[in-house]
Amino acid sequence: MNGQNLIGNEYAEAATSAFKAINPATGATLEGDFFPAQQKDVDEALNRAVSAFTVYKNIDKDRRADFLRAIANEILAVGDELIERACAESALPLGRIQGERGRTVGQLNMFADLLAEGSWVEAIIDNELPDRQPAPRPDIRRMLVAMGPVVVFGASNFPLAFSVAGGDTASALASGCPVIVKAHAAHPGTSALVAAAIQKAVISTGMPEGVFSMLFDDGYEIGALLVKHPKTKAVTFTGSFKGGMALNKLASEREEPIPVFAEMGSINPVLLLPEALETRAEQIAEQYAASITMGAGQFCTNPGLLLGVASAGLTRFKDTLAEKVAAISSATMLTEGICKNFSTLSAGMLEEQEITLVAKSSLEVDGASNQALATIAEVSAKAFLANPKLKEEVFGPWSLLVVADNVQELEQVLAYAGGQLTLSVMAAENELNTYQTLLDKAEEITGRILLNGVPTGVEVCAAMQHGGPFPATNDSRFTSVGTTAIRRFVRPLSWQNWDKKLLPPALQDGNPLNIWRLVDNKMTK
Amino acid sequence: MNGQNLIGNEYAEAATSAFKAINPATGATLEGDFFPAQQKDVDEALNRAVSAFTVYKNIDKDRRADFLRAIANEILAVGDELIERACAESALPLGRIQGERGRTVGQLNMFADLLAEGSWVEAIIDNELPDRQPAPRPDIRRMLVAMGPVVVFGASNFPLAFSVAGGDTASALASGCPVIVKAHAAHPGTSALVAAAIQKAVISTGMPEGVFSMLFDDGYEIGALLVKHPKTKAVTFTGSFKGGMALNKLASEREEPIPVFAEMGSINPVLLLPEALETRAEQIAEQYAASITMGAGQFCTNPGLLLGVASAGLTRFKDTLAEKVAAISSATMLTEGICKNFSTLSAGMLEEQEITLVAKSSLEVDGASNQALATIAEVSAKAFLANPKLKEEVFGPWSLLVVADNVQELEQVLAYAGGQLTLSVMAAENELNTYQTLLDKAEEITGRILLNGVPTGVEVCAAMQHGGPFPATNDSRFTSVGTTAIRRFVRPLSWQNWDKKLLPPALQDGNPLNIWRLVDNKMTK
Repeated sequence: MNGQNLIGNEYAEAATSAFKAINPATGATLEGDFFPAQQKDVDEALNRAVSAFTVYKNIDKDRRADFLRAIANEILAVGDELIERACAESALPLGRIQGERGRTVGQLNMFADLLAEGSWVEAIIDNELPDRQPAPRPDIRRMLVAMGPVVVFGASNFPLAFSVAGGDTASALASGCPVIVKAHAAHPGTSALVAAAIQKAVISTGMPEGVFSMLFDDGYEIGALLVKHPKTKAVTFTGSFKGGMALNKLASEREEPIPVFAEMGSINPVLLLPEALETRAEQIAEQYAASITMGAGQFCTNPGLLLGVASAGLTRFKDTLAEKVAAISSATMLTEGICKNFSTLSAGMLEEQEITLVAKSSLEVDGASNQALATIAEVSAKAFLANPKLKEEVFGPWSLLVVADNVQELEQVLAYAGGQLTLSVMAAENELNTYQTLLDKAEEITGRILLNGVPTGVEVCAAMQHGGPFPATNDSRFTSVGTTAIRRFVRPLSWQNWDKKLLPPALQDGNPLNIWRLVDNKMTK
Repeated sequence: MNGQNLIGNEYAEAATSAFKAINPATGATLEGDFFPAQQKDVDEALNRAVSAFTVYKNIDKDRRADFLRAIANEILAVGDELIERACAESALPLGRIQGERGRTVGQLNMFADLLAEGSWVEAIIDNELPDRQPAPRPDIRRMLVAMGPVVVFGASNFPLAFSVAGGDTASALASGCPVIVKAHAAHPGTSALVAAAIQKAVISTGMPEGVFSMLFDDGYEIGALLVKHPKTKAVTFTGSFKGGMALNKLASEREEPIPVFAEMGSINPVLLLPEALETRAEQIAEQYAASITMGAGQFCTNPGLLLGVASAGLTRFKDTLAEKVAAISSATMLTEGICKNFSTLSAGMLEEQEITLVAKSSLEVDGASNQALATIAEVSAKAFLANPKLKEEVFGPWSLLVVADNVQELEQVLAYAGGQLTLSVMAAENELNTYQTLLDKAEEITGRILLNGVPTGVEVCAAMQHGGPFPATNDSRFTSVGTTAIRRFVRPLSWQNWDKKLLPPALQDGNPLNIWRLVDNKMTK
């Protein structure tokens, strides 16, 4: 693999001291030297992106779809080397990484299908009304167009599906925008392999050079330069609240403010309704023990807040959860920093007033580094409401059981918990009917609400919303997962009385692309 | 009219010293006392808005449509008093204000139609796939839901269509969000009359109290408090760059950042292509003399930058424009402040190096106050490119003719001019073909591009985009005019495996609302 910065189709010559990747499970240094980018690389990547944009935005939808499919194929063609490297750099299990590659390739092909179908541009045509009184209506036609270079930050917890060729890159390239990836320093080798695959696809499908670049950095400087660069038009980020808000601040302080799409995590409340607990407390506990500890809890949708009214059922739920969690082995976290953070934050939580430990995994794997022990704690709703620290995210296998005295307290806890990516409700048949006010409150604070399931495992589809009210994300009007993620990078443009032969195909009379369009307020195809 | 602050359905008791409205044409004080709101009024308006929101967001689409139609009817029912007051406060001519009332009522009814039709919620359904490998797909359904209280700033230049019951209020109320209007201090009487009309509609259609409030202020304090209030979820503003950016900054510095939709004006370049000038320079000049001076040039789409390559045709254009503009009477501007600003800015422009005066209206109306004289100046493209001051907006009847040596300079000027609401192209038949690169650049910087027309007069329809790249607006992904303006106030919410009887009607099986939906990636109704 090549650890130099990929700028357009060329690797820039290194002029900095290299950093290395670490296997978090062993602490061992992995092969490969990776070179932090410099200001000149940022400038060059953006200059090439702007040049590429003038060509790329006008490339027809089928060729752009072919490009995305070619990236998917080139990623598969890397083969086992990619899987092995991603496992070594992330300590995520083989099955998970194989699944994640499938998801990554699936996302690219999903956006290719979206492009090929074509209706996503939201073509709207209002035909001329020359005889309208008191004034004629001109011919006005509108569609979505690409905004320009997008900076994508690779995420630590999805080395494939939310990194170099992940959902952000796929949706931005699909929209017609060039992409510059800031590779995550925790998996530089994986990033280099995927970037090389994209480079091959750029060349084989004849895309303009500069439509994709990738820069390395093991600090924060290059990321900040990318966000502040005047030619950058949008930024995507998946990570911590602190990181997301720092980028948001940089972007809002620019001379030209630009959108940052920061998915900053969430504590994903789970409402345990009384009848559900009465009838199947043990089953729910088992389901949630698995969800909380899956992937060492390193999901933005990890259920970190379990919420119910005190009852015999809730006690049974707690006892079973304690038993199951205690029997779960420790797991290696993604990086030493994340592991230390988990230890510090979970230990700190347990020192807060009125918090008690419910269970902690007792099976620590011998000889492995950066191990997280799953931990469940308990607190009363009153104590939770009195201590803002308790609603902070603990990234990792942690969940807090909040015990309320009554339904009114549940409502208070939800309103107080703030914006969330997901909110799960465990209910018996017809039990939801009784809790309409509570559910109404629940809907106000979340981007996705689910019944009798676990929030981990985010389906990639058109109806998915992965983005909730603040502080889960900084802009709940957009999603980072699913086909509508493409809307982050486009803006509407209207043509008035334009030469009909020169309109974009999506807006031409006769509908040459055969897409769904709103014509004179009627949806037609 | 009642000059107290309307908070929900009640007028708050005054505790501040009143301000008065001024007739800008005469300088005379108009009848009526208006009372600046206080912090407690802001709090109370937001508290009532939040209470109203829990009810209002769930009111069915037909009742919400009836509410909007009732507002339109109540505005018409105010009758001549409203027209007279708006004319007196704005000095805009009777025909313009009558037309603006028609547009205001039309916008409300347009959003009512949009609600009644129902498809705007973008319902997307991905049905369960229980047998999918390697894992089943859950049932996921998504639609747009309202975000919460919206603060609307009344605009000086549209006392009806972009003020109390204007496009921002209509689209926010349509979306399911409560509205708090900060009335513009230049037309408080007009605002009070319209607010009372809305109040009547709230009561007659049984809408929850607090769905609408209106506060007065003759300074900036109340506006700032409204933007900073933690219960505010979005802000709309039409006005100056300075004002829009100040609100944007306040919003981005909140603990919870919220969107501000600031339509900040633009210089709206007009590309005069050579063949068009050769064949009809005089006709174009006549068309533009009218557009530049319409409404004393007080439109965000006023064509402030005329752009062509030096030629005999361009000289004829300039000569005719000079002749026409010189013969246009002065006109009263909206406020003393706006008039002073126009005088200062236009005089300052004329003092810049290499700028020459082309024409200035010579007909100053006797005895009227706050008169603006239409002014056209000229500069070379080289001088324009060297002096950033020349691309600043001069709000009023001002336009700068930029003369380029060649087409490459035209491209440079466009790229340099930055984001615009509109960009007009005057071309002969088939002339556009020759200028694809130039037009491509033009499309990159504008929200609307038009051929052989004038940008003033913004059609209110589904295909309209009124919002361009920065600095024309701070977020080019949204429009403030047309049906898609509703999207500013909504976010997607997904329901996963939800109880099918309890889903919102838009997402229920059998499509009870008979709306267009994307079901398993197929558009159906």
